[in-house]
Amino acid sequence: MSTSIATEAPVDSGVDTPVDTVQDRLSRAKTASRAVARLTSDDKHRALEAIAAAIETGAERIVAANALDIDRGRTDGIGDALIDRLRLDDRRVASLAAAVREVATLPDPVGQVVGGHRMPNGVALEQVRVPFGVVGAIYEARPNVTVDIAALALRSGNAVVLRGGSAARESNTVLVQIMRDALDDAGVDPEAIQTVDDFGRDGARALMHGRGFVDVLVPRGSAALIETVVTESTVPVIETGAGVVHIVLDESAPMDWARDIVVNAKVQRPSVCNAVETVLVLRQAAPQLIPVVASALQSEGVAIHGDDMVQGLVTQVIPATEEDWEAEYLSLDIAIKVVDTLDDALDHIRRYSTGHTESIITTDALNAERFLAEVDSAVVMVNASTRFTDGAEFGFGAEVGISTQKLHARGPMGLAELTSTKWLARGSGQTRG
Amino acid sequence: MSTSIATEAPVDSGVDTPVDTVQDRLSRAKTASRAVARLTSDDKHRALEAIAAAIETGAERIVAANALDIDRGRTDGIGDALIDRLRLDDRRVASLAAAVREVATLPDPVGQVVGGHRMPNGVALEQVRVPFGVVGAIYEARPNVTVDIAALALRSGNAVVLRGGSAARESNTVLVQIMRDALDDAGVDPEAIQTVDDFGRDGARALMHGRGFVDVLVPRGSAALIETVVTESTVPVIETGAGVVHIVLDESAPMDWARDIVVNAKVQRPSVCNAVETVLVLRQAAPQLIPVVASALQSEGVAIHGDDMVQGLVTQVIPATEEDWEAEYLSLDIAIKVVDTLDDALDHIRRYSTGHTESIITTDALNAERFLAEVDSAVVMVNASTRFTDGAEFGFGAEVGISTQKLHARGPMGLAELTSTKWLARGSGQTRG
Repeated sequence: MSTSIATEAPVDSGVDTPVDTVQDRLSRAKTASRAVARLTSDDKHRALEAIAAAIETGAERIVAANALDIDRGRTDGIGDALIDRLRLDDRRVASLAAAVREVATLPDPVGQVVGGHRMPNGVALEQVRVPFGVVGAIYEARPNVTVDIAALALRSGNAVVLRGGSAARESNTVLVQIMRDALDDAGVDPEAIQTVDDFGRDGARALMHGRGFVDVLVPRGSAALIETVVTESTVPVIETGAGVVHIVLDESAPMDWARDIVVNAKVQRPSVCNAVETVLVLRQAAPQLIPVVASALQSEGVAIHGDDMVQGLVTQVIPATEEDWEAEYLSLDIAIKVVDTLDDALDHIRRYSTGHTESIITTDALNAERFLAEVDSAVVMVNASTRFTDGAEFGFGAEVGISTQKLHARGPMGLAELTSTKWLARGSGQTRG
Repeated sequence: MSTSIATEAPVDSGVDTPVDTVQDRLSRAKTASRAVARLTSDDKHRALEAIAAAIETGAERIVAANALDIDRGRTDGIGDALIDRLRLDDRRVASLAAAVREVATLPDPVGQVVGGHRMPNGVALEQVRVPFGVVGAIYEARPNVTVDIAALALRSGNAVVLRGGSAARESNTVLVQIMRDALDDAGVDPEAIQTVDDFGRDGARALMHGRGFVDVLVPRGSAALIETVVTESTVPVIETGAGVVHIVLDESAPMDWARDIVVNAKVQRPSVCNAVETVLVLRQAAPQLIPVVASALQSEGVAIHGDDMVQGLVTQVIPATEEDWEAEYLSLDIAIKVVDTLDDALDHIRRYSTGHTESIITTDALNAERFLAEVDSAVVMVNASTRFTDGAEFGFGAEVGISTQKLHARGPMGLAELTSTKWLARGSGQTRG
């Protein structure tokens, strides 16, 4: 048991592993990943059932640990919204266990044959889905992510190394311990779930630079966190989340679709990435559409940030500045801007969109097709609410995240996006001529 | 025309663009990429035909520019192998043009519908292939890569920003100019092909940090170059190439397959990444197999680096050291090691493989399946030469590179791997309940 590298020793080892370095943890995850990759779908189902049951059994411990985080959060004055995200009560613990059971029932992507053919010389080629190996996750104060990511990683045959926010450290420590013990009971190497929370910033740094040990890194949280992970990591990253989402109201937009879709996209759940932040209205339709849409929004408690024309059409509008076009409010705020042409709308989107989701409300077929073709976002919609950009809505059964990058995965990610592929070639002595 | 940022001004602007900053170039590539993304397959075919014809017409200019690079290379003493890679004679220029014509005939991946379904509420979802946008390429002294990558990027609807090695700068300048002029003649925005060679290291740095302008970066060249690009880039990278490739000779390996496959994998083209570097022989079969395989290799001029047992079985063996197990020789050298068990072979591969290609020669079905399941490489083979890991051999028609990473693409890459996807959603007023 080495403690020679004092700066790498855990600051608060709540997990029942020997005192070790962060590198030891990554190394043990990598070793465990090889066994996890070979588990059958049934094995993984059983392991996840064991985790769900252990979470239920451990509810009291989890809530007690969470209370310590909540208390510390209150002392530190982290604000009600964050306290709410942090909180695990009996109901939320039950839904954590339910989420694990749901992941357990998802079809196993591992072993799927996604392609193949016989080469002219007779060598049989087969492209099959295989786990990445070790999935790293860096996220913020939501302890539910600890369980979600671990379950998704395991279901897709991966080991996982977790780095949650320090605000949730007591909760995460207990959740990881419960999940590891459950794996052990189910006959699966508990080293397949690791936390590096107790190494503080060194833990995050080790994940981001863990080439050879961490196969892919998934950041979950604020735009700032994601930006840090993307720019600092030498490990491949799947960029998720940030959504400065636009809806364009074309001249031909039916009044009721415009109103209902904008209100739904803003109000149904304002704190998530697929909620609309900016509405662009074609000038010719502005006098008819804006008062109706704005009044519907205001009656739902939405604060409108608008340009000069919007201010002239609606009362109680906050004058919009450059910052409003850049804002991912994640709140009951919305920016509304009048544009002269569809080209201007497309220009605005090119400049301010984060490439997540954009929708146009129109009955003009040419404008609809142009919008679909020219907007360079993960999901481009016509006449539908941006809230549909979601793994469950897309029928994937689980929410691994929504990729806003173009490599590997784009848009809502299912379990298959937590796997890679490899080529198998079976020959009988063939050589290349 | 701004020259205010002196350090960013081109050091030798051979390209017929105004004096500009490296950022201007990336920005113009991004703008051009939008038009290129919307070209039809026929448009792109015509543009590539124009490029091929212009390369043929410009052969004399190309060879003359190349002569300057060769002269400078000789003065700098860069060695015969590098001089040979650098050289463009009439025959090689003709084959450059032929390669462009071949790429022109490949099926266009853009617009392929790769998935989709109707949501329960009636929204029609469609996942379609779209170009990345701007593909960046950082590569070394081979001027043919300049043309290859530009053709592949264009065929898949992307703009391209090139950063070639300074040893080929005169050749690359003329090749880029010829391709840009050809695009212009074909009615395609010439800004779709950019070079940043004239910015020296600043050009490479701008590509690696070009988030928002460069959608994906493909390094081609030495392991050191690839490592630099992977660790320095904040832009997503497709890691290609390095191959410490293994062949395992199982106890049940037929003598002729073992001999023919090892010789083919080493000798047919030793300088490429899918050539074998290390042979692992099961101890029980070593006395029979090693003398035969070694003698066949030696008669082809291969130098054998072997462990103690190999030295005892074969003459003229160079004693192998740790460095030999790590070596990607890319030459007529091979390392041979005796292992006690298949487990030991798998351990050795886990430790030293770069995850490119490994093959086992065996008639034991259990060992074959175990090798296929447990070796974590892009291509895992049974009884076939590792030289088959190749885009053309796999039937992709073009060699974009061989990915050794697990994200996005793994193994030989076809044109489809130079595209992303996006989701199109067509509704009629649907909102989320």
